[in-house]
Amino acid sequence: MSEISLEYLQGLDATDPLAHFRDLFALPEDLIYLDGNSLGALPKQTPAHLQNVIKKQWGQELIRSWNSHQWLQKPVQLGDRLGKLVGAAQGQNLVCDSTSVNIFKLAAAAIRLRPRRHKIITETGNFATDLYLLQGLQRMLGDQLKVVAVSRDKVATEIDKETALVLLTHTHYKSGQIWDMAEITALSHQHGALILWDLSHSLGAMPVYLDQLNVDFAVGCNYKYINGGPGAPAYLYVAHRHQDKLEQPLTGWLGHRRPFDFDDHYQPALGIEQTLCGTPSVLANAALETALDIMEQADLSALRHKSQQLGNIFIQLVTKFCPEFEIASPTDPNQRGSQVSITHPEGYAIMQNLIASNIIGDFRAPNNMRFGFAPLYIRYTDIWHTVETLADIMATGSWQETRFHQRQTVT
Amino acid sequence: MSEISLEYLQGLDATDPLAHFRDLFALPEDLIYLDGNSLGALPKQTPAHLQNVIKKQWGQELIRSWNSHQWLQKPVQLGDRLGKLVGAAQGQNLVCDSTSVNIFKLAAAAIRLRPRRHKIITETGNFATDLYLLQGLQRMLGDQLKVVAVSRDKVATEIDKETALVLLTHTHYKSGQIWDMAEITALSHQHGALILWDLSHSLGAMPVYLDQLNVDFAVGCNYKYINGGPGAPAYLYVAHRHQDKLEQPLTGWLGHRRPFDFDDHYQPALGIEQTLCGTPSVLANAALETALDIMEQADLSALRHKSQQLGNIFIQLVTKFCPEFEIASPTDPNQRGSQVSITHPEGYAIMQNLIASNIIGDFRAPNNMRFGFAPLYIRYTDIWHTVETLADIMATGSWQETRFHQRQTVT
Repeated sequence: MSEISLEYLQGLDATDPLAHFRDLFALPEDLIYLDGNSLGALPKQTPAHLQNVIKKQWGQELIRSWNSHQWLQKPVQLGDRLGKLVGAAQGQNLVCDSTSVNIFKLAAAAIRLRPRRHKIITETGNFATDLYLLQGLQRMLGDQLKVVAVSRDKVATEIDKETALVLLTHTHYKSGQIWDMAEITALSHQHGALILWDLSHSLGAMPVYLDQLNVDFAVGCNYKYINGGPGAPAYLYVAHRHQDKLEQPLTGWLGHRRPFDFDDHYQPALGIEQTLCGTPSVLANAALETALDIMEQADLSALRHKSQQLGNIFIQLVTKFCPEFEIASPTDPNQRGSQVSITHPEGYAIMQNLIASNIIGDFRAPNNMRFGFAPLYIRYTDIWHTVETLADIMATGSWQETRFHQRQTVT
Repeated sequence: MSEISLEYLQGLDATDPLAHFRDLFALPEDLIYLDGNSLGALPKQTPAHLQNVIKKQWGQELIRSWNSHQWLQKPVQLGDRLGKLVGAAQGQNLVCDSTSVNIFKLAAAAIRLRPRRHKIITETGNFATDLYLLQGLQRMLGDQLKVVAVSRDKVATEIDKETALVLLTHTHYKSGQIWDMAEITALSHQHGALILWDLSHSLGAMPVYLDQLNVDFAVGCNYKYINGGPGAPAYLYVAHRHQDKLEQPLTGWLGHRRPFDFDDHYQPALGIEQTLCGTPSVLANAALETALDIMEQADLSALRHKSQQLGNIFIQLVTKFCPEFEIASPTDPNQRGSQVSITHPEGYAIMQNLIASNIIGDFRAPNNMRFGFAPLYIRYTDIWHTVETLADIMATGSWQETRFHQRQTVT
């Protein structure tokens, strides 16, 4: 693959075992969408399914649909379907609330499970909400808790006998760098600590093995590679062995053992349902349902292979044709998720130009241009056209005009 | 109104200033839907609006819609629109998460605002999630906090100088009984306590005056009288005067002052946005948007007047034609929300019969049959037909067969 040509990539598309998936999404014809790591594409079946849920289930059957259409069971049903994508057996998975809210629930629960330990370890530069929720928990619990955020290279040595919980994002939101889940999980357990993995940038982008690796807790986002729709309800995992003693603080009525008894005293449900809090959005759950119909058809190894290939090709082409950029993601595909970041001091203006050319990636301050390669709908030739356009922008200097206008408006 | 006849009620429908609203909802022709206090009806415009948001905004414009279609601004925009229904000026209102999650945020924040006080007062028999969330908070904070739940008649005397917060549901979910918001708010403030009103069964059913009464905090449900769809995101209010010092524990990235800086340290947004946590469901927000288009057209005084009339007529007709039932709601319409509960030892079987006759109310254990009168789409004559059918069920004893079948299947 030392010499990548357009023809070569056309050949890869022609033999791509996942190529037919693209037709299941309603992408604009003329757009190259490299931001599925932020908001996944719309499955073609979603509008019709939503219409049915809205018009028939809500509009015609009304309150009865909570039972007849199993609206109440969706959090568990959808959770278990997601569980299959991350190697989690049934009864440990739920779809509810946001990733942020679920982080709070599980981090607070972990502290209760390790009452004599007072440290939570995480990484500086982790996705902001992971850090913020731990800080919120710390402010609430005061001296009981210390949140220790250290750089990636220091995390392993920081885990000790004082550590109640380690919270890490499996695939880094910006660099795409992947933690060795097996290694850090085992290390945490050696010290008696629990681990909570944030799978937001891994879910639907690669196989994950929660049960096999003995993971304690996980959360994840369903509006990225899962294509569950903007602000889709989030995924949550609690290993069976922790469910009996779990005490999560957001004890809403739907987490009660018998919610419709309306008893004055909270008693947690016996299984994973105890992590449910308020009433779930039925419409949001419905969009996620259709998305999973697609995701379940995909072979996760094939998907991971294509994702890595797409990233490799992008890195090689950028290195060759756009030497102005630094590669800010691991070049080893086994250490990289499904996105590649490149940096340039004028990254913002350059990305604006790319978007104006109908190629959508995103920008993360201060200089990070992020390209996500959702393997279900990105073609190998899309990478060629992206780098070709990027090289063209750099050659013509068209981004400098954007930068000029930007300065005009900002000042 | 001592002698209520069908003709009389037909006359009321003919001159009802709110009658035209019914046509804005997609209700089944042959159904009398008296459960809008649990799940509101579908506005006819909702499916088309959702299709547009799904197909065009999500499907075609993708990630750009967060800005171009103001997806990010919806929590504040929708909040402020709801604020107008409850007498709350702009900048104090937000739509996000569930009522349950919002109760936790605000109860925890209240405790921080009254650090030397350790009591939260609430009512036994309050809606379960209100009690459960306080219990979850108590377990988390330990000795710092005592949740005191007393019966309604003892609440006022229980509020004292140790009280940090009083949490009450304005309109009781089962009896429909209304608290005197002015009185209890003033009383709480006299003792230096804060008040959090749960408006779930009041929102969209009557005028409320949060600013005028100097209320501190409020939450509310948007899938009942507001018609925002099953599991719609919830309403939240924080009075301007508390926003500077507010510390709510669910410090997610969207509550940060500059979320897209992805800074490692949480800094709350300056306004009501600080109560936002994770990414909101765009589809769920869109359904709420259409619902508010209708609600904003309604005169709240006219709506309240009709709601009271409907309840009065129901009580009079049940008293006259169905003497087997006890009225379990206040007969004084000024002390009652938009629903009426009646009780009967065989209430469950009787309600099943009523539902089989296409009249939908609901049942709350042990013996409570609950009828909600959503004034935007319930007709006066619906009350007649409901009580007529109920009287018929009692006269023929058809419910006894349901009871028999039920016992067969339960044992």
